[in-house]
Amino acid sequence: MPNHLAGARILVAGGASLVGSHLTRALLERNVAEVIIFDPVAFDAQDSLGDLKQDPRVRMVKGDLTRLPQIIDHMDGVTRAVNLAAFMTIGVSRDPSAALELNIQGHLNFLEAARMCGVGKVVLASSNGVYGYGIGGAVAEDEPHHHNGIPPAAAIYGSSKIIGEHLCRMWKSKYGLDYLVLRFSTVYGEGQHYRAANALYIIETFDRLMAGQPPQLFGDGSESKDFVYAGDVATALCLALDGDQTDEIVNTSGGQGISTKDLVDMVCRVAGRRIDPEYVTESGRVRLPTGPGLHFTNARAKEVLGWEPRMPLEEGIRRLLKDHVQRKGLDPATVPDATLKA
Amino acid sequence: MPNHLAGARILVAGGASLVGSHLTRALLERNVAEVIIFDPVAFDAQDSLGDLKQDPRVRMVKGDLTRLPQIIDHMDGVTRAVNLAAFMTIGVSRDPSAALELNIQGHLNFLEAARMCGVGKVVLASSNGVYGYGIGGAVAEDEPHHHNGIPPAAAIYGSSKIIGEHLCRMWKSKYGLDYLVLRFSTVYGEGQHYRAANALYIIETFDRLMAGQPPQLFGDGSESKDFVYAGDVATALCLALDGDQTDEIVNTSGGQGISTKDLVDMVCRVAGRRIDPEYVTESGRVRLPTGPGLHFTNARAKEVLGWEPRMPLEEGIRRLLKDHVQRKGLDPATVPDATLKA
Repeated sequence: MPNHLAGARILVAGGASLVGSHLTRALLERNVAEVIIFDPVAFDAQDSLGDLKQDPRVRMVKGDLTRLPQIIDHMDGVTRAVNLAAFMTIGVSRDPSAALELNIQGHLNFLEAARMCGVGKVVLASSNGVYGYGIGGAVAEDEPHHHNGIPPAAAIYGSSKIIGEHLCRMWKSKYGLDYLVLRFSTVYGEGQHYRAANALYIIETFDRLMAGQPPQLFGDGSESKDFVYAGDVATALCLALDGDQTDEIVNTSGGQGISTKDLVDMVCRVAGRRIDPEYVTESGRVRLPTGPGLHFTNARAKEVLGWEPRMPLEEGIRRLLKDHVQRKGLDPATVPDATLKA
Repeated sequence: MPNHLAGARILVAGGASLVGSHLTRALLERNVAEVIIFDPVAFDAQDSLGDLKQDPRVRMVKGDLTRLPQIIDHMDGVTRAVNLAAFMTIGVSRDPSAALELNIQGHLNFLEAARMCGVGKVVLASSNGVYGYGIGGAVAEDEPHHHNGIPPAAAIYGSSKIIGEHLCRMWKSKYGLDYLVLRFSTVYGEGQHYRAANALYIIETFDRLMAGQPPQLFGDGSESKDFVYAGDVATALCLALDGDQTDEIVNTSGGQGISTKDLVDMVCRVAGRRIDPEYVTESGRVRLPTGPGLHFTNARAKEVLGWEPRMPLEEGIRRLLKDHVQRKGLDPATVPDATLKA
């Protein structure tokens, strides 16, 4: 059994994030010597790490991947490194120039620093956004990118991740830098923020229920989403960092589709409050239309990493909402379901 | 009939190029007031414009799209603008950082400058690289991007063009900037350089024939290419600049596939010298594998622009090679075919 984690120094670019906090916890449990969180600490992300920042093995570094000297400074002596730093679709829509600079040149700098500093292997967080939108059914890793006619920000985000993946392949073939790419489906979990276009169905629905407002459904509620729990994603990242597998790209997904209508039902059930949803046709926000039954197969991740998702969606949503209630400091008296109270 | 060209000031970013020289000639014939060639004049590109630089209506500006102030300086007072500036696949392979910076941030700067300066409409030169590789048959505009497993530089190039297209869509929807995107197939013509992965089949075959060496074919020679003559592309660009059509993306292709084997045959015929080709399996260069019968349909370009390609391939190759002989200063005695001599 390979073990490159015990005693290792792991750099996590973009680590002050939802996935970063779950990953940092998982790495500490696996007895790494140091986790270097390299992050500009933008947005509200400084909150995601919480108490983890107090662990003496966690080193917070304020840095920007788009500046090569900054990342080189901190890559020295690193065993293995993960790149989680990216703007997602909403960020691309707001500031395309900064988003493209981080997602593309930032990732290229990450690879270049890893190569120059002799890092043993890197892992890139990619996304099912590389498949585009409008398709349904089961999607495996060889699916092309369906970008024609979809919202520009979604196509730009997906393409930026495709470029990131192929930069990994290029650095492997030019310089021998080992890598794995994990294509996340919609990640959710404790530490959930408001920046992801899809995870919003969970916390926005809950926020509206708490405010006595009907949850909102776009279209007819039949669109399918594939959620994966952040703790499961952290496990996949640890396996990817730990082993000797290289030059592979795998879906790290829940592997099951859920319609937005069923999702809102589930959130109502967990919240202990039901209000009939209202159907919205136009909201002005960036929407990511999907076909019925959409889900991303993860058999390849099991073959390559020995990974499969473990968290049932309803239990994961319960954990997310309990954490959300705490973070928002909601009055417990207003929360119907007892299991969501601290 | 709209006519935005007579008396217009047209900026052509990346204009000191194969397509740029044909476009400049076509614009001058349509009585524009000024053609502003904005170009870093890199590679051997300074040669492509030749005598056109002597025309008083042609203004050469040394500038770099990746520097927004430089392009803003020259966009002021421009009627309409074209962006031809990009690294292609071979350039991406050699210098991915510079290539991505030009193809993506450079194009974003081009759009931003056009918007700020009130340019009436922009045209982006995109590429059939947005469809990826490995596919065959007829390819229309709604084909997704087949990037999995193809050479990294080809996927990165294609994705950079997809991002460029969707940036156009974003600037249209955010700011109302009118645009057309033309997806060129493999452009060839007088002024041919050595930087395009596919056009090489013509001039490299000819160079080898002149040196008494067998032409090289990769694979079994059945791969299909779709060539379009640079003069036809220039006509399409003029139509795109001239009219009021907006928010459309069309293939500007030859619309017919030719196998690399038949192409080499054709070059032998035009050159007046036949040497049996040798079949090469591995060359170390970036290759762009295609399926049999690949071609890009151009019915949409006819609908939107009223454009269709006119140059027969063999006649176009004759023009290219005649120009190539002159540029290289080949001894006429060594050129078998009389029509290739000046």
